[in-house]
Amino acid sequence: MLHKLSFLAVLLSLSVFSFFSYAESTPEASVSVLFSPSDECSRIISEKIDGAEKTIELAIYMLTSRSLAKSLVLAVRRGVAVRIFADGESSREYYSKVNFLKKNGVLVKIEDGKGLMHNKFCVIDDKTLITGSYNWTNSADLMNDENVVIIESEKIARVFRVQFEKYWQGTYTDEAFYIDKNKLIKHK
Amino acid sequence: MLHKLSFLAVLLSLSVFSFFSYAESTPEASVSVLFSPSDECSRIISEKIDGAEKTIELAIYMLTSRSLAKSLVLAVRRGVAVRIFADGESSREYYSKVNFLKKNGVLVKIEDGKGLMHNKFCVIDDKTLITGSYNWTNSADLMNDENVVIIESEKIARVFRVQFEKYWQGTYTDEAFYIDKNKLIKHK
Repeated sequence: MLHKLSFLAVLLSLSVFSFFSYAESTPEASVSVLFSPSDECSRIISEKIDGAEKTIELAIYMLTSRSLAKSLVLAVRRGVAVRIFADGESSREYYSKVNFLKKNGVLVKIEDGKGLMHNKFCVIDDKTLITGSYNWTNSADLMNDENVVIIESEKIARVFRVQFEKYWQGTYTDEAFYIDKNKLIKHK
Repeated sequence: MLHKLSFLAVLLSLSVFSFFSYAESTPEASVSVLFSPSDECSRIISEKIDGAEKTIELAIYMLTSRSLAKSLVLAVRRGVAVRIFADGESSREYYSKVNFLKKNGVLVKIEDGKGLMHNKFCVIDDKTLITGSYNWTNSADLMNDENVVIIESEKIARVFRVQFEKYWQGTYTDEAFYIDKNKLIKHK
């Protein structure tokens, strides 16, 4: 199992610089890839949460996993600031852990704008980014075919953190229209 | 818009080596991040498809976007081998473009196993990997809150290509069970 994981979870050491003027060089980073149900996605995400020291931001469509919710509450109890921006409709479903998390000190905001809050990304301590197709549910872990990409990079984490802050402050673009459908040019 | 895109679509030049013995060093790679509906996700994915020269593998939950389907058909017409592994239930929905793609030379297999084929990843020419929460639909592009991560790396592309081949050959793990729920240890 470990061998398989080590094969799939390609861990790459990346020395990073950017082409854009705003960018700075950053320390080394790594990228891991996991697939469910074959890999230990839930366990590895739990480990990442358990290792958090300061902040966790989670933008999520479905959160029904008891073990991941438990890890988030344990993070709050050891002083980590945990914020969740969650989809409205999914959060009101019976198995959602959003109310449980609210009652246990997690700061939660609900998205009830246009379309779905369909992200499943998590930023930990401004340096770890978890994304992919994987909602935080047992179905994703045991039955669905999913991927999880974990990027250890302050630069990538910052890009997602900036987007999370837009969600949190309500300054994000909620809807767009094509003004030129042939070229897929959008008006926001 | 370009400035905003260039800010969000962090393009990082990464020199890559691995910690594991099977690994080789690879040429430089790059990571881009896009968010919908604010960024031009559909247009940029279309451009990637339009640039394909040999192969496209797509593992997808929902594909209803006319423009992305059109780009895939144009790829077939210029000689690119395009394969899609698509979710069964979603593929039978009215707006799905899967039948249109089949009729136009795309090789399609339908997943009707346990759970959802919930991936939204695409490998292009064994070197570009597109993933994230973004299904290939207009809703994802215009209304939902989504992320798209594009990684230009032969190594990462290969990891996803290997997983795609498992789907295609039917050799993937379709379901798993926890044998130790407290530690989230799985039996596959």
